[in-house]
Amino acid sequence: NDWKKGSRLLSGLVGSNVLLFSSALLTCVFTEDIDIFEKDFLIFLTIMMAICILWMLFQMYFTWKNKNAVLYKDCQAGPIWMRVGIILFGIGALVMTSLKIAYTAEFEDCVTPTKITQPVIQALFILVQTCFLWVSCKHCVQIYLNATRCFLMVLLAVNLTIWILTVTEESRHHTNELQAYLYRNNSETNISDLSEDPDERENVNICGCKYTCAVNKTVFVYLYPFNIEYNLFAAAMIYIMWKNVGRQIDENASFHHGLGPGVRQHIPLLGLFTGLAVLITGLVMFIMYEVGRENLHKQWLSLSTFYFFHVTSLAVMCLANVVGIVIFKLDKRNMDNQKNPSRTLDMVLLLLATVGQYAISYYSIIAMVSTVPFGLLCGLTLTYSVLMIIQHSLQNVFIIEGLHRLPPSNLLNAHQGTSHLRTVDHHDAVRRRSMPERESRLSLTNHPRNERISRRETLTQHIKSHLKKRKTMKDVYLFLFLCNLIFWIMPAFGARIRFDTGLEVNFYGFSLWAIITNICLPFGIFYRMHAAASLLELYSMS
Amino acid sequence: NDWKKGSRLLSGLVGSNVLLFSSALLTCVFTEDIDIFEKDFLIFLTIMMAICILWMLFQMYFTWKNKNAVLYKDCQAGPIWMRVGIILFGIGALVMTSLKIAYTAEFEDCVTPTKITQPVIQALFILVQTCFLWVSCKHCVQIYLNATRCFLMVLLAVNLTIWILTVTEESRHHTNELQAYLYRNNSETNISDLSEDPDERENVNICGCKYTCAVNKTVFVYLYPFNIEYNLFAAAMIYIMWKNVGRQIDENASFHHGLGPGVRQHIPLLGLFTGLAVLITGLVMFIMYEVGRENLHKQWLSLSTFYFFHVTSLAVMCLANVVGIVIFKLDKRNMDNQKNPSRTLDMVLLLLATVGQYAISYYSIIAMVSTVPFGLLCGLTLTYSVLMIIQHSLQNVFIIEGLHRLPPSNLLNAHQGTSHLRTVDHHDAVRRRSMPERESRLSLTNHPRNERISRRETLTQHIKSHLKKRKTMKDVYLFLFLCNLIFWIMPAFGARIRFDTGLEVNFYGFSLWAIITNICLPFGIFYRMHAAASLLELYSMS
Repeated sequence: NDWKKGSRLLSGLVGSNVLLFSSALLTCVFTEDIDIFEKDFLIFLTIMMAICILWMLFQMYFTWKNKNAVLYKDCQAGPIWMRVGIILFGIGALVMTSLKIAYTAEFEDCVTPTKITQPVIQALFILVQTCFLWVSCKHCVQIYLNATRCFLMVLLAVNLTIWILTVTEESRHHTNELQAYLYRNNSETNISDLSEDPDERENVNICGCKYTCAVNKTVFVYLYPFNIEYNLFAAAMIYIMWKNVGRQIDENASFHHGLGPGVRQHIPLLGLFTGLAVLITGLVMFIMYEVGRENLHKQWLSLSTFYFFHVTSLAVMCLANVVGIVIFKLDKRNMDNQKNPSRTLDMVLLLLATVGQYAISYYSIIAMVSTVPFGLLCGLTLTYSVLMIIQHSLQNVFIIEGLHRLPPSNLLNAHQGTSHLRTVDHHDAVRRRSMPERESRLSLTNHPRNERISRRETLTQHIKSHLKKRKTMKDVYLFLFLCNLIFWIMPAFGARIRFDTGLEVNFYGFSLWAIITNICLPFGIFYRMHAAASLLELYSMS
Repeated sequence: NDWKKGSRLLSGLVGSNVLLFSSALLTCVFTEDIDIFEKDFLIFLTIMMAICILWMLFQMYFTWKNKNAVLYKDCQAGPIWMRVGIILFGIGALVMTSLKIAYTAEFEDCVTPTKITQPVIQALFILVQTCFLWVSCKHCVQIYLNATRCFLMVLLAVNLTIWILTVTEESRHHTNELQAYLYRNNSETNISDLSEDPDERENVNICGCKYTCAVNKTVFVYLYPFNIEYNLFAAAMIYIMWKNVGRQIDENASFHHGLGPGVRQHIPLLGLFTGLAVLITGLVMFIMYEVGRENLHKQWLSLSTFYFFHVTSLAVMCLANVVGIVIFKLDKRNMDNQKNPSRTLDMVLLLLATVGQYAISYYSIIAMVSTVPFGLLCGLTLTYSVLMIIQHSLQNVFIIEGLHRLPPSNLLNAHQGTSHLRTVDHHDAVRRRSMPERESRLSLTNHPRNERISRRETLTQHIKSHLKKRKTMKDVYLFLFLCNLIFWIMPAFGARIRFDTGLEVNFYGFSLWAIITNICLPFGIFYRMHAAASLLELYSMS
């Protein structure tokens, strides 16, 4: 009779202390005199990562050797798209770390042992962690419960720390770039120095490159999103492992997604083409926008067009969500109320991440309503913000309801089962009767047989309409998945449209609006990625 | 087969939107040009409060009239100390609102309809809400589930908005005061103007008082803590009501706290006296500290003494927590793993509120470690921060384990029950035997009887040691309750010791440290209040 909550509490306290301490150090790094604290922070992070690497290696060896360590597996944890995702993002993170090592090594004179050790250990950490999660994300560990929980929490804290670090670095980079951009726009002179970090400039001045500065810092800025997603994915998987420590699951409970005939083969062409249309339009617009930004004097894609694309695609996404919800209401099913840590985490993360977009949208709405000359761009921004809130709300309702619906196989099986049972019963009853009675009843059997045929017809019709609904659902899922993907790509790779209009910046002032954006936008980006992942899961289940 | 989560999700989305919108407005009030947004915000708040008042009146009438509306009551929700607490804090909040009305009415020329309507509606809101919560905090509403959930969430959002508003106003007041204090200290001249709000000064200058400015704004600053606690208590109770909507409870499951003989009568003198000693010492020191602050030139109680008191009492509290945890380990009981929304909320709130104190302590530790001339005050601050982290962790483990332990009555009953059962069995078996056999066994019965007596003796001894442990627990609970109370009173009524030393302020700069304190300290204050309440509950259950 072990008390799970007590042990969880202990590991939670350990993890939160590690996380809070590193956050406090991180705040110092980004506000105080950089040199001292950056070194301290890097040492701390390196030590923590080394501890995690050792534990993960130990745990993998231990689990492989001791057959009693893992008796059960949670088949809902770590679905295949998540495991593939972590490998893809892991490769991205690894490339970024390698570039970082190369970049650091270039400045021969300024390389300190900490500055070069940290990325090397981080690369090792990414490698070991990816292996570890691939191997053991489904495990329900049964021995050394307390130690396992504590180390998992430390690992979670380390991942979140790296996440915060990356997000802050990226935000700082974008903010510096925007500030320079706005400054350039205002003064109409080309001061290119401001676009770089003061830190970086200093490096170049003092240290001097070894190999003609081949690796530019701006190259690996585009790899930040991979690193960010990698750590978030890892954190989610570790949390599920932590929840599953000591859990005992009935292995027989298989989770078949009961695909009806013709649903698996069905290729949702409508969803695919409309989704791809949005995705490609978005990509083209995004690239034009990015190119246009670099080249100041060219007449680049006007912001209103870009906004217009955002507004229309959000409206279409809202429509798709509404269609999905309506089909859910028509195609009634039982809800799954069973305990499922992965699903609960998905739900909580979706809802928490929504708060970021809600907040930034409300701030934007207030600013737009108060802006006195209410122009076209004002109207577009206002519509965009309102649609953003509506779309997030609808999509949350849609995804969460979808995740909780039981597969329809029960329904079909039940129908077939009972009809089959009934006919057997009927035959049995008939056989048991004496011959004369049977013959006298022969005239009557026609009627039930007809009834049975009509019953089968309605059943077929029911199944057909049911299958049609499910095929439509596949379209909706695929379309929304592709839309969420493009809405992830644009902000993750640097589009800050709420900054570029200058409307909110004028209202709130640069620093306040930068704070609001830098806090809320990472959640917004995470939301899109997570929603896309959930939609992919729903698609594979439908 | 209604799906609870779907309806909860809907109401949660409504509530979070209301809360985020009002937070966004509130940010504008506290950063932008005040006049416009303050008016907008007050109008919004007044409308929301009016809607809540109407709904609460309707709900109370409806529940009273329709007997089917509430079929079940959750007897764990709204314990008596919480209901008494809400009335006490409600009176405080009401007094504060009345003073606010009087203060606003004084400036005859500047009174706008919004400025006078808002406090009047707020007073009404406090009155109606207190009635509503007193009457229906235990209800599990069974009809109009969706509407009830949504309105409860709106009510929760309104309470949290008022809480954020009050906390921000209080923080601003304290920050202004501290800034003025530090400025005075530095420049050694007495500029009394700075201690007042610029807003207030303006009022006095332009409007002019009607009745000789009898109600000073500083008078009701001391009533802020009541208002803050009132809204938090209300929010907690509303959340429990929301969780209980549509819940069906077995009414027969009574939650007896099985007091052993002599435990209820036992007055924990040791805990009472040591606790009162800490409380009174703390109060005296706090008053001396406050008086000393006002009078600059007097040699007031030195900060080191005040710090020393904090450090020693924290150390004693840690000790008491350790004693409590050890007794828990000795006095093994079964853990209650049943669903209990009130307890889960208590747990989550305690843990979340801890994060505030953890964060501020880690920031302080980093600052202290980096301060170069490491003086006495540095050492005291460092010890204080480390002890704060340890004490919070221990206390959380202690309270959460305490809340989950099942009452010992089962244990005692089980002991008595089985022994009783066994004797009956024995008698029965004896009676069934034939006389000769019985007589032949008479010589043997002496042995079991002796054994039974010795068994009873060990049982009595077991009970005695058990009761002794429980009496000690009462001491521990009472002592910790009183300690937490004084640690609530000091910061809630204005002690900002981490500011007064000037060590952290020098390190982080005034504005950054003010931000850290203003975000973290409200959580710290809430933690103390909440821990005191939980300890009181444990005391009444022990």
